[in-house]
Amino acid sequence: MRKEIRIAGSGGQGIVLASILLAEASGIYDGKNVVQSQVYGAAARGEMSKADVIISDEEIYFPEVRSPDIVITLSQDAYDEFTNGLKEGSLVILDDFYVRHLKDGIKNFHYPITKVAIDITGSKISSNIVLLGILSGLTGVVTLDALKNVVNERFKNKGELNIKALEKGYELGAKEAYDGKTN
Amino acid sequence: MRKEIRIAGSGGQGIVLASILLAEASGIYDGKNVVQSQVYGAAARGEMSKADVIISDEEIYFPEVRSPDIVITLSQDAYDEFTNGLKEGSLVILDDFYVRHLKDGIKNFHYPITKVAIDITGSKISSNIVLLGILSGLTGVVTLDALKNVVNERFKNKGELNIKALEKGYELGAKEAYDGKTN
Repeated sequence: MRKEIRIAGSGGQGIVLASILLAEASGIYDGKNVVQSQVYGAAARGEMSKADVIISDEEIYFPEVRSPDIVITLSQDAYDEFTNGLKEGSLVILDDFYVRHLKDGIKNFHYPITKVAIDITGSKISSNIVLLGILSGLTGVVTLDALKNVVNERFKNKGELNIKALEKGYELGAKEAYDGKTN
Repeated sequence: MRKEIRIAGSGGQGIVLASILLAEASGIYDGKNVVQSQVYGAAARGEMSKADVIISDEEIYFPEVRSPDIVITLSQDAYDEFTNGLKEGSLVILDDFYVRHLKDGIKNFHYPITKVAIDITGSKISSNIVLLGILSGLTGVVTLDALKNVVNERFKNKGELNIKALEKGYELGAKEAYDGKTN
């Protein structure tokens, strides 16, 4: 099992933190091998933020995402850019407030990611936690328990609300748990 | 110019954050191309924390650190592990409180990194800021101004003390600015 996951959106949406929490959950608590990376500079265009996580049962010899299995997008720009050339079977998770124009021929899974974050925690900054819950419920690529552990560690003061955001995301994702579920 | 920088220490020393701040400073403010990455899981041994940054004037086609130009270590374990097989010309920056047993034949630059952090900010958690200042002063691989920008963005409340920690680190590093200085 090797899964390449790309998370992308605008600056300020907590994309890098989402990918680090995912990597910690999977690497420390799910016992997988994980490489997490992001690019800055000319290669990272404008206001876009993008981070990659590779999760594998085996040692990871090639630490670069070439053809993601899962793409999570929190902005239209990110959607337009990173859903190009997806391989068959790849799925796309998107925020249906920020991403309104969808391409055909892609497995789009849309959720009110930012809205759920605001409803539960009062701040859109928690949308990165909601998306991790969705990712877990929908694909099983990371366990909910592992995510709870890292969220509790990271958010000492606001742990409880973030756990709620995570669980709500999981619930939404699990409703249509993807056929290609990896667990 | 391509520089591979590895930062390593124990869990809880802010190693990953240090590498992300370095990557942001270099990629966003110094105009370089940067890849930042870390590994979790079986490949990351025990309590050790390690993060890599590659800084380049060119596009980065090979995003993996193979032979670091600069290794920064905040623990003896990290020093012992990541100073093996260094190429000629590589330099090692170390915390002289945590790293006491040094190898011969290595360009060791030792500083009271954690002590300076505690003296200035009251907390050893700022040692990752001090080390970034030292890196800038000693090697020039990232500018002090770029680091100030990212530190101010990141630490809204405690910005001022962290800037002081950064400047003190820079001052220490600049005292023995390395011959192989890259700027």
